[in-house]
Amino acid sequence: MADTHALATLVQALKGLPGVGVKSASRMAFHLLQHDRATAMQLAQALSHAVAHVRHCERCHTFTEADICDTCADASRDHSQLCVVETPADQSAVERTGTYRGLYFVLMGKLSPLDGIGPHDIGLAKLRQRASEEGLREVILATNFTAEGEATAHVIAEMLKSLGLRVTRLARGVPAGSELEYVDLGTIAHALVDRR
Amino acid sequence: MADTHALATLVQALKGLPGVGVKSASRMAFHLLQHDRATAMQLAQALSHAVAHVRHCERCHTFTEADICDTCADASRDHSQLCVVETPADQSAVERTGTYRGLYFVLMGKLSPLDGIGPHDIGLAKLRQRASEEGLREVILATNFTAEGEATAHVIAEMLKSLGLRVTRLARGVPAGSELEYVDLGTIAHALVDRR
Ligand SMILES: [Zn+2]
Ligand SMILES: [Zn+2]
Repeated sequence: MADTHALATLVQALKGLPGVGVKSASRMAFHLLQHDRATAMQLAQALSHAVAHVRHCERCHTFTEADICDTCADASRDHSQLCVVETPADQSAVERTGTYRGLYFVLMGKLSPLDGIGPHDIGLAKLRQRASEEGLREVILATNFTAEGEATAHVIAEMLKSLGLRVTRLARGVPAGSELEYVDLGTIAHALVDRR
Repeated sequence: MADTHALATLVQALKGLPGVGVKSASRMAFHLLQHDRATAMQLAQALSHAVAHVRHCERCHTFTEADICDTCADASRDHSQLCVVETPADQSAVERTGTYRGLYFVLMGKLSPLDGIGPHDIGLAKLRQRASEEGLREVILATNFTAEGEATAHVIAEMLKSLGLRVTRLARGVPAGSELEYVDLGTIAHALVDRR
């Protein structure tokens, strides 16, 4: 696109965003430079600022700008429960249910041998240490119900077995509001097995 | 997502990119901060650099870092022909055919009354002045074959009528390599009208 090196470099950098191919990257670069340089500058500043200031909570590994995140620092929460999730977005989903008052451990990923993501990458040693702390009674495994999420939950359950904790998993079942006719058979089968 | 203001600001800025909603923006922010801070820094720098250095060619309006772009400055090109395109990407498509050796005028958009884009926004006064220069014999209208591209071509053709130039339009027709059976009827109708 045109003869500018600055533009080619920008298209290349935008292509580094997940889900953005060369066509989208070119369209984004054109839009920013032709119609919205203010957004381009805001994005540049937001990126620099986030890279400089966002790090991981020492207790739960989620993103924070402090040593310890607001959730971990909240004395009013139930420190006897630890809910293990894959990402901050998953943590946010559990929070929004308004039904959980315990603490979290955020893996910031999931075991994925094919992508070279092993126990170290998702902080399992740290989780083991965290789970050994006095006062903790239950670890709830809330990784996703995908093949990798299930495998991750299984590995963590095995790891925590010897600690004398209650290790639970979110129930599988039929989503609220759905009609059985339209629910996939695997889900119905799991709901039968996990019936209350 | 988590409790950091820097992260929320970054998600908001990424949402400013065309075609990026809040879900994609969150996924991008997570990916950059968790797995690829080098790309985040490169993107920040590429944005700042492009905003600071990319401007418009004084002759053809395309993006350039100099006063006049390489194409306009190329004395070996045919200065008697001017091809009018909507974007640098369209210019690049015409260039890649290897069949055109004239100059360009890049509108950097198209007439679009509903979006508030009028003649001034696509530099029509500049184009008129450019088309009046000595030595120019032909203006080829290569705007897109969409409703807005056709309307833009029509307005430009009307504007240049009085200048005594040859004003031509890219031929509409059946795409090379296609089977008539699968070509839409409007395209076949146009190919019949424009038959050689
Ligand atoms: Zn924390
Ligand atoms: Zn130029």
